[in-house]
Amino acid sequence: MSNPTQILTNYVNLIITSLQQQNIRQVVIAPGSRSTPVALLLAQAAQAGHFELYVDVDERSAAFFALGIAKKSQRPTLLLCTSGTAAANFFPAICEAKLSHIPLVVLTTDRPPELTNIGAPQAIDQNRLYGDQVKDFLQLPTPDQGPDVQAYVAFAVQRIIASSQAAPAGPVHINLPLRKPLMPDLTGQSNQTPQKIAFPKTQTQLPPATMATIQAKLSQGKLLIVAGPSTDSQQQQALLAFANEYQVPILADPLSQLRQDANDLVITSSDLTLKTCQALPASLQPDLILRTGTTMVSAALGQWLATRSCPIYFLDTNHHLDDYTKATTTQLPVSENWFFENCQLQPTATQQPFSSAWRQLQRHYQRWLAQNLTTLDEAAVPYLMSQQLTASQIFISNSMPIRDFDNFFAPHQGNFTLLCNRGANGIDGVISTALGAGLHEQRPNFLVTGDLAFFHDMNGLMLTTRYPLNLTIILINNNGGGIFSFLPQAKATAYFESLFGTPQNLDVAAISQLYHANYQIITSKSAFEAALAHHEPGLTILEIKTNRPQNAKRHQQLTQSWQQEMERLYATTIDEK
Amino acid sequence: MSNPTQILTNYVNLIITSLQQQNIRQVVIAPGSRSTPVALLLAQAAQAGHFELYVDVDERSAAFFALGIAKKSQRPTLLLCTSGTAAANFFPAICEAKLSHIPLVVLTTDRPPELTNIGAPQAIDQNRLYGDQVKDFLQLPTPDQGPDVQAYVAFAVQRIIASSQAAPAGPVHINLPLRKPLMPDLTGQSNQTPQKIAFPKTQTQLPPATMATIQAKLSQGKLLIVAGPSTDSQQQQALLAFANEYQVPILADPLSQLRQDANDLVITSSDLTLKTCQALPASLQPDLILRTGTTMVSAALGQWLATRSCPIYFLDTNHHLDDYTKATTTQLPVSENWFFENCQLQPTATQQPFSSAWRQLQRHYQRWLAQNLTTLDEAAVPYLMSQQLTASQIFISNSMPIRDFDNFFAPHQGNFTLLCNRGANGIDGVISTALGAGLHEQRPNFLVTGDLAFFHDMNGLMLTTRYPLNLTIILINNNGGGIFSFLPQAKATAYFESLFGTPQNLDVAAISQLYHANYQIITSKSAFEAALAHHEPGLTILEIKTNRPQNAKRHQQLTQSWQQEMERLYATTIDEK
Repeated sequence: MSNPTQILTNYVNLIITSLQQQNIRQVVIAPGSRSTPVALLLAQAAQAGHFELYVDVDERSAAFFALGIAKKSQRPTLLLCTSGTAAANFFPAICEAKLSHIPLVVLTTDRPPELTNIGAPQAIDQNRLYGDQVKDFLQLPTPDQGPDVQAYVAFAVQRIIASSQAAPAGPVHINLPLRKPLMPDLTGQSNQTPQKIAFPKTQTQLPPATMATIQAKLSQGKLLIVAGPSTDSQQQQALLAFANEYQVPILADPLSQLRQDANDLVITSSDLTLKTCQALPASLQPDLILRTGTTMVSAALGQWLATRSCPIYFLDTNHHLDDYTKATTTQLPVSENWFFENCQLQPTATQQPFSSAWRQLQRHYQRWLAQNLTTLDEAAVPYLMSQQLTASQIFISNSMPIRDFDNFFAPHQGNFTLLCNRGANGIDGVISTALGAGLHEQRPNFLVTGDLAFFHDMNGLMLTTRYPLNLTIILINNNGGGIFSFLPQAKATAYFESLFGTPQNLDVAAISQLYHANYQIITSKSAFEAALAHHEPGLTILEIKTNRPQNAKRHQQLTQSWQQEMERLYATTIDEK
Repeated sequence: MSNPTQILTNYVNLIITSLQQQNIRQVVIAPGSRSTPVALLLAQAAQAGHFELYVDVDERSAAFFALGIAKKSQRPTLLLCTSGTAAANFFPAICEAKLSHIPLVVLTTDRPPELTNIGAPQAIDQNRLYGDQVKDFLQLPTPDQGPDVQAYVAFAVQRIIASSQAAPAGPVHINLPLRKPLMPDLTGQSNQTPQKIAFPKTQTQLPPATMATIQAKLSQGKLLIVAGPSTDSQQQQALLAFANEYQVPILADPLSQLRQDANDLVITSSDLTLKTCQALPASLQPDLILRTGTTMVSAALGQWLATRSCPIYFLDTNHHLDDYTKATTTQLPVSENWFFENCQLQPTATQQPFSSAWRQLQRHYQRWLAQNLTTLDEAAVPYLMSQQLTASQIFISNSMPIRDFDNFFAPHQGNFTLLCNRGANGIDGVISTALGAGLHEQRPNFLVTGDLAFFHDMNGLMLTTRYPLNLTIILINNNGGGIFSFLPQAKATAYFESLFGTPQNLDVAAISQLYHANYQIITSKSAFEAALAHHEPGLTILEIKTNRPQNAKRHQQLTQSWQQEMERLYATTIDEK
C-alpha cells in the first residue's frame, strides 16, 4: 500500500464513494491539472453508472450550471476545479447559492501545504477562500493511508454534504490538497466503500398548545397569505389546499409556483395594485397576514408589508427570519407542509366577503390584461407566455424580466415551474443556470432574459455544443440596460448611455449561428405565439427587439391604466403613493 | 446641508477627490444601480479632465481590464461596481492582483447596514468579501455630514490607496454603503478638496557594513544571475549594467524584460537546457547565485535551484521571500535599483571563462533555434515574433504560450515588454488584461493565447466595440487544452478528450465578425511574418490552427534535438533527468 499512486487512488476513491453514499449524482467539472485524479476517478465511476458528468471550461458558467441543477433537483451537486483563480471564478454562483439556500458542494483541489504562500505557481490561498459565503468549510488532509485519516475523510465528507442540505441549506466548500504524481490507477476497482452515515430528515413542529394558540389567533379576522418564492411544489400543494378550504386569498409571487390555473384566489396583481395604491380599499384589507417563502419580487408589496400594523406570521423554513420588511410579529420556523396540514381555522364571517373582494379584483385584472396586452412588447412577453404555454419550465433573468413576470404572468391553466436567481438577484449566469435547471426536464425549458444578461453569460452556450441540452431563449433585446430607464438617472442624459444604457450592438443572429442555435427574430404577437406553439428541442433563440425609452413609457401607461381601473372599480380616487 | 441629496453628493465627491489626491487616473466601471452616485460623479469629474473612464458590463472582464491597466502603469486603478454578485465577479482578478502585487483599488457599493443579512434584494454580505485575497479592507460609514466622519473618510481612503502601492503592492477593497435616494446633484461644483496626504517613496537599504560583507561574498566565485519576472524596466537597466560590468551571465525569464537585444550574457535557453540536463557541465556551474524578480516561469529552473548547495542571494523586492524552491540562503529585501547601483565586486579570475561558457551556449542556442524553427507551429510562434518584431508589447496567456515564450522567444534586437498573469497563472481574463495593459501603448500590442483562454474571456472583446483599443490577438487554435497532451493523463485515452482535451469547435472567423475584428487565418511562416510586418490598429485576430498530439510530439523532438546539441557541444553524454 505504500505506492504513492495507490495511496492517491484509494484516497480519492474514498472521497468519491463518500459523495455517492450521500446521493450526489450530478457532477460538474471545470478542467485543470491539479484536479486530474478526482476528474479521472469520477469519470470512471460515471462510466460505472454512479454519476452523471458535465465538463465546462469556464468555471463561472460551470458553477451556475451546477447551481441550476441543484436548485431544480433540491439535491447536492458537486462542482470540481483545479487550484488557483479557477476556484475564484466559482464565487458569484456560490454567493447566489448561499442566499437562495442551494446545496452546492464545491470541491477545489489545491497544491499541498508546502507549496502554498511560498511563490509556487497556480497556488492562491484556498483556505476558507469563500469566507462567509459558504455554509461550511472542510480542509482535507493530503492523501494518506492511515486508518484514522481515512475514517476522518469518509466521515467529514459525508457530514458536510448533509450540512449542505440541512435547513437552511447552502453551499459548502471542500478543499483537497494533492501532491504529484497526480495520475491515479485506473486499472483497478475502487477500494472499500465507506460506511454510509444516515441523516434522517427531521420535522420541526410547534407543540400542540402553541399550535392551538396560533390557530385561534389566525381565526380572529380576515386572513391573507403572502406567498413568496419557493421551489418546493409539495409544500405549495398543502398551501393551496389550506387556502381553498378556508378561502384565504394568496398574493402569489411569480416564483411561488402558485400561478398555475384559473383559481382566482391566487392574486397576480399585487405589485401593480400596491404600486398604485398602498392604502387598499377597505374590502381588501386583511386583519392578519401569513407569509411563506423567501423575499418576494415586488418592492411595492415589501413596502406595504413594512407599514402594516396587523399581526404577520412568517412560515420561515430557513429559520433565519430574513425579512427586510421587519414586519414579522411571529416567526413560525416550521415547514409549510407540516403547518398547513395541521392548521385548522375557525374563520370569521368576514373571511368570505374578504375573499370574494380579492377574487373579484383578480378576475378584473385578468380581463384588463387581456384588453391591454394585445401587441408584442416587453410587458406582453410574460402575459403571452402565460396564455399560450401549458406545461413549461421558465427561468427568468433578473432586473426587468422578473418584474414583468410579477405583473403580467397570469395563466388560466398550466403546469409551470418558474425559476430565477433571487438570492442575490444578479444578472450573471442566467444561461448556465437555466441549462442546469433544465436537465432532465420533460417540459419545454425556457429562459427569458434581456440582452446584457445574455451577453454576460454567453459562455454558458458552450455547454450546448457539447451536451444534448434543451433551452429556448427568449431574448428581449433592448440593446442595453433596460431597468435604468425607470430610475432617476434616466434624466442625467449627458452620462446615461455611456454609464447605464451601455448598448453593446452585438448581432444575436451571428451569435446563434456560432452556437448552432435555431434562431428567429420575432416582430409580432402572432409570430411569438406561433414560435411558442412550435417548440423544438435543442437550443433556440427567439429575439424580440424593443426600445428602452418606449418600454419605460409603456410601463408608465400600464401602471396608470391599472390605477384608473382600480379607481373605477372601487369608485373612489386612490392616492398615488 | 441637511438635504439628503446634498449630503450624498458631498460625501461621494469627498471620496472621489480623495482618489484624485492619490493620483488615481483610470477608472473602470461595471454598471449598476447602487453605484449610481459614484458613477455619475466620477463621470462628471472625468468630463472635467480628472479621470479616464471605462465602462464594461461583465464585471469579471472589467476587473481584469483594470488589472491590466494597473499592471502596466504600476499605478493604482479604480474598479467600481454595484452590490451583490457583481462584486463576486471581481474575485478572479483580485486573486491574481494579490499574488502579482498589483495596486487594484476595488470600490464596491453596498446596501446600508439595515438592509444586509435581512433578506433584502441584491444584498450579499460584502464585509471582508474578498477575505485574505486583498491586502487591506476599508468599511466606509454611510454618507454623513459630520466633520469627524468626513475627515475620517478623506484620510482612510487616501491611506488605503497608498497601502495598495506600498511594497508588497496589492489589491485593496473599499466597501461603501449607500441609502436611497441614489441620484446625486450634478448641477453644482464639487465641495472642498481634502488635504492631500503625502506618502514619499521610501528606499530600503542595507547598512554599509552588511553591504560590504555581501559584496565580499559575491566576489568569492563564479556568479550567476537568475532573473525572474519583473515589470520595472528601470530596475532592469541597473541589473544589465551590473551584469555587463562584471560579466555575470543572466538566466533571463521571458518576463524579466531582459530579452531585448543581442547581448549573449542574457541566456534564453535555461529551461530547455535544465530540462534535459540538471547536472550542468562543469564550465557552466556557478559558485554563487543572485536571484531577482518573482517566481520564474521555468519549472526545470526551479527544480535546479532547489537542488543547489551553493549560496543563493534573493533580491526580494516584495519582502515576503516567496521562493518555492526554498533554496534562498540570504534574503536581500531591497530594490534591484539600489542594490545594483551600490554593489561593487572584486570578481575572481574564474568569472570570465564562466561567462564565456554561457555566452557560447547562448550563441549556439540562437543558431539552433534558427535551424530548427523554420516552419509555422506553436514553438515557432514566439521565435518568429522575436525575430520579426522590434518595438512591441506582448501579453502572453498562461499554460502553453508562456512556456513556449520561455523556450523560443530570443530576440537579437528590440524594445519589448512581455507581460503575463503570473501571480496565480490562470488562463482567465487574458483578453481583458491585454487590453488594459495596452492602454496608451504606442508600440503594437499583441496577445498570444490558446483557444480555451480566448473563449474563456471572449466577453473581454466587448470593450473593443466601445473604445478605440488596439490589440492583435495571435490565437493558437489547437481546439482544446493543449498542455494536457504533455501530462500523464494523455494516456487515459478513454476519458482524455471529454475531461481534458475539451474541444469547443467554435468558429473564430465568426467570432471575429461578431466583434468587427480584422481576421486572418495564418497557415505558413511567411504569411505569419507578413502579418506581423503589417500591423494595423484596432482589433485583429490572427488564427493559427495547430494539432495537440502533433504539438506534444514536436516539443519532444525539439527537446531531444537540443539535448543532442548539448551533448555534442560538451562532448560528453548528459544524463536525462
